[in-house]
Amino acid sequence: MHAYRSHTCAGLNRANVGQDVRLSGWVHRVRDHGGVLFLDLRDHYGITQVICDSDSPAFAELEKLRAEWVVCIDGRVKGRDAALVNPKLPTGEIEVYATGMTVLGAADELPMPVFGDVDYPEETRLTYRFLDLRREKLHANMMLRSNVVRSIRNRMWAQGFNEFQTPIITASSPEGARDFLVPSRLHPGKFYALPQAPQQFKQLIMVAGFDRYFQIAPCFRDEDPRADRSPTDFYQLDIEMSFVKQEDVFAAVQPVVQGIFEEFAPGKKVYADWPLIAYRDSLLWYGSDKPDLRNPIRMQIVSDHFRDSGFAIFAKLLENAGTEVRAIPAPGGGSRKFCDRMNAFAQKEGLPGMGYIFWRKAEDGSGMEAAGPLAKNIGPERTEAIRLQLDLGEGDAAFFLGGKPENFEAVAGRARNEIGRELGLTEQDCFKFAWIVDFPMYEKTDEGKIDFSHNPFSMPQGGLEALQGDPLNVYAYQYDLACNGYELISGGIRNHKPEIMFKAFELAGYPALEVEKRFGGMVKAFKYGAPPHGGCAAGIDRIVMLLADEANIREVIMFPMNQRAEDLLMGAPSEPLNAQLRELNLRVVPKE
Amino acid sequence: MHAYRSHTCAGLNRANVGQDVRLSGWVHRVRDHGGVLFLDLRDHYGITQVICDSDSPAFAELEKLRAEWVVCIDGRVKGRDAALVNPKLPTGEIEVYATGMTVLGAADELPMPVFGDVDYPEETRLTYRFLDLRREKLHANMMLRSNVVRSIRNRMWAQGFNEFQTPIITASSPEGARDFLVPSRLHPGKFYALPQAPQQFKQLIMVAGFDRYFQIAPCFRDEDPRADRSPTDFYQLDIEMSFVKQEDVFAAVQPVVQGIFEEFAPGKKVYADWPLIAYRDSLLWYGSDKPDLRNPIRMQIVSDHFRDSGFAIFAKLLENAGTEVRAIPAPGGGSRKFCDRMNAFAQKEGLPGMGYIFWRKAEDGSGMEAAGPLAKNIGPERTEAIRLQLDLGEGDAAFFLGGKPENFEAVAGRARNEIGRELGLTEQDCFKFAWIVDFPMYEKTDEGKIDFSHNPFSMPQGGLEALQGDPLNVYAYQYDLACNGYELISGGIRNHKPEIMFKAFELAGYPALEVEKRFGGMVKAFKYGAPPHGGCAAGIDRIVMLLADEANIREVIMFPMNQRAEDLLMGAPSEPLNAQLRELNLRVVPKE
Repeated sequence: MHAYRSHTCAGLNRANVGQDVRLSGWVHRVRDHGGVLFLDLRDHYGITQVICDSDSPAFAELEKLRAEWVVCIDGRVKGRDAALVNPKLPTGEIEVYATGMTVLGAADELPMPVFGDVDYPEETRLTYRFLDLRREKLHANMMLRSNVVRSIRNRMWAQGFNEFQTPIITASSPEGARDFLVPSRLHPGKFYALPQAPQQFKQLIMVAGFDRYFQIAPCFRDEDPRADRSPTDFYQLDIEMSFVKQEDVFAAVQPVVQGIFEEFAPGKKVYADWPLIAYRDSLLWYGSDKPDLRNPIRMQIVSDHFRDSGFAIFAKLLENAGTEVRAIPAPGGGSRKFCDRMNAFAQKEGLPGMGYIFWRKAEDGSGMEAAGPLAKNIGPERTEAIRLQLDLGEGDAAFFLGGKPENFEAVAGRARNEIGRELGLTEQDCFKFAWIVDFPMYEKTDEGKIDFSHNPFSMPQGGLEALQGDPLNVYAYQYDLACNGYELISGGIRNHKPEIMFKAFELAGYPALEVEKRFGGMVKAFKYGAPPHGGCAAGIDRIVMLLADEANIREVIMFPMNQRAEDLLMGAPSEPLNAQLRELNLRVVPKE
Repeated sequence: MHAYRSHTCAGLNRANVGQDVRLSGWVHRVRDHGGVLFLDLRDHYGITQVICDSDSPAFAELEKLRAEWVVCIDGRVKGRDAALVNPKLPTGEIEVYATGMTVLGAADELPMPVFGDVDYPEETRLTYRFLDLRREKLHANMMLRSNVVRSIRNRMWAQGFNEFQTPIITASSPEGARDFLVPSRLHPGKFYALPQAPQQFKQLIMVAGFDRYFQIAPCFRDEDPRADRSPTDFYQLDIEMSFVKQEDVFAAVQPVVQGIFEEFAPGKKVYADWPLIAYRDSLLWYGSDKPDLRNPIRMQIVSDHFRDSGFAIFAKLLENAGTEVRAIPAPGGGSRKFCDRMNAFAQKEGLPGMGYIFWRKAEDGSGMEAAGPLAKNIGPERTEAIRLQLDLGEGDAAFFLGGKPENFEAVAGRARNEIGRELGLTEQDCFKFAWIVDFPMYEKTDEGKIDFSHNPFSMPQGGLEALQGDPLNVYAYQYDLACNGYELISGGIRNHKPEIMFKAFELAGYPALEVEKRFGGMVKAFKYGAPPHGGCAAGIDRIVMLLADEANIREVIMFPMNQRAEDLLMGAPSEPLNAQLRELNLRVVPKE
């Protein structure tokens, strides 16, 4: 017999009754029922009930066991009486009568229990991560992540993608976030950087003639902590393809992502219709470039109904250029109580409030009437025109926000979420995707400068010609995949022509020399025969969070940092040895 | 039709004759045969011959093309005359008559050609890696690597292993080599380290209750440059299993590695018999702990034949403790010319020389005689006894080395390689594996101190008890896989018991406090119920090098550093910005 086990703790069933077996695992729970010990033995695979009474030579030893000791049990499989069968366990029809036991690994008193669902402070959980990971939910999350990554790989291979590894110790490449630097010992005073993403390398792989690349790639950004992201590194499914248009990337990616969600979200509907929504429309309709389409509410522009109306606030602000009034229709929200609650929500979000109209049964019983201060101010005709435009009726409401869209869009988006949730309009247990396309290439910064609004490496729609006009009218072949209010994927068709690239950077204020310096490797490559190419990157942690229904990224990472970017288990970061600093020609200077 | 291609450059054959097609790719080669242009168009998948004559509207444009331009060709598929069929190409039965052409990416004059097999200096090749990678051999190497990694993953999954990602920004853990450090911005003066290997994490994964882990893991070591290793990072197949003995690890690993070699070394024999060879025997028999078993020569101890013999050098040195004389039998090496050449080889390797005896047909025709100075010195009786022990005969030779084995073992091993090769004894076109086992746990350093000879985390054979005696007699459950003279895998059954671990470190001079400090996370974990576990790590780069038959690791890495640890394409390492150093509270000090 094997030194440690003849079966796993999920391996025995009625067919094994009568067999002598050996199991190894952790003591999940021990109960003493009047001279009979019941011990749940747990391993990676499952749980088996071990019993023992004073007739067994192992009884005295088993009596001493405490939770989380690792033991090896010899025993005989017994069938359980029908009344004692546990249908929830694969091993629920049997138990193992222990005749021998060896302790493989003892356990001190536990700083946190494994059995049971008690909540523990995160510091404790991270310090004793190896205990935390033994708990059912976290074990399941890690297996989910492992299986998701496996399935992604299989699906990418099935579509003819090849996985290539790109360097992790490489050059600093300012891509927006802050680099982690790595001092070079062989080149004193010089530093490597950890890649924020393999962006340049994957483009070089295309220029090198490989057609379809992917990688589950670690990415490193020295960012200030935030709840939903890791403060140091994260993994992305990185994809790049040659000789493609935007729609080819979509066609390659959808089966992978949809397949993953269908495979790992059993019981949840995964919509196969992935609409393309222009960035501008997404902001208008949903107040967000990562809309939650489970919520059917679409906002609309209703400026005309308020122009020169009796509602002075809106009428007045509409006199200013670039202003609008938008409506959030709220079917079923037609009560003053609900409308006041939403108004309060907007105030909590920092707006002066949201005007509203709601439609109710007229008090005199003569049909429907519009209520709310706004309705009074603009009068029945305009009110009715709004109702018709928004296709609302009795029992419904509409909320109104005015001003420059960029000042209220985000709050409008959150109000839309709130309204959808409160009114039960937002569909449950489903995933709804949309490609957000036609991102503007440039934006005006607060200082009035023109800068890239997203990825500077994307191809401007219309090419070199489009760059001759107003930069703010240029759209990029750049896209995001939104899912249930999250951005899952971001990508673009790349700018592979040096002359367009230099022009695009020039518009954003970067002279050619600066471009050569910052992205020299890639620019050089584009001069020697570059194919049109494009791709995208999907956040693995985010996908697993969605599938595991977790809100904290640390629940889907095996050994996460805490929010102060510390590894409490391994003790990182830590003071270096003086010898190490000397070798690196570095000195730590006191913080100013 | 698709904007760029209806088929890949490997996609057309006789069945497509008559079709209008669109292809995109690089101009591999253009030839002008008196008014007819022949253009080899190349993409990731293959090459298609495009032809064009002055009747075609595309002729004038095609004439201007130079090598490595990226173009899109419209044309019609034509069958080739039987005499012109190229059976080496999948598209060799057709050609495409071009009717239209678009330039997708122009190319400046090339610093190195893609077509042809000209050798270029490594600096050029690395600076223009994207061109180098377009060459047939390198493209094939990268695809081999990608496919090997894919196959490894599939094979590991098939055996029930789960892939988990371990941290890359983590704690410094002195495991022998030098760490790469990463300064922390949020914790001034503190540093993270990049992992030399996920050793501690994979053991923690076992303690956390996961049963079978693997990862294709990046590992980072700040090592001084060497031809056969990357100066910064490398990838390993990292494996760990719970509730296993050494033989369980072997049983899990062999099918994976053997399968990979069988799959990717077509035409080469992959031996299925993987003997277990004790470390001590391997040094004795082969002069190496990574023996090349394709060479059948086994060395033997022949001390007794030289003790008190007429060969004073050996007789005298055998009087000193710890000395031995060992013989390298050389079947078929029985000529003075060969023996002198081997003697010269030993001298080149720094030894005073190798004594030898060879057996030839007696000059008087009366059968066999032993020749060489050694034979004369020790006389016919001892010479004959040696011949019998080594099982040699006429036409054979034997070489002799004496002294303390550690002083000549390595040279003996290299001489054995040389002899095997020179005499054609070493089998060609095959892979022969062996597990080297029973490594000594400790060794005496040059200063006479006891230190770990290999991995300090391995379980000593005999456990705590064995550690009570002479440390130099303790063997570890530690093993290497040797293949054709390379170490492919290294691993061990781990020491999972804190009390044995502290004792093992104590013997090597590390007090408990030091152990807690260095390996705190892991030691802590072992106190809360650790299962017996073990595993190994296999060098991915090395495996691919063997399969691709490459001697330089840079031939199997997509974007390698040069030997001075520089990335010539991306320009790493580089000077940091002052702002970056300020943020990190670091100052570069001049080299002393």
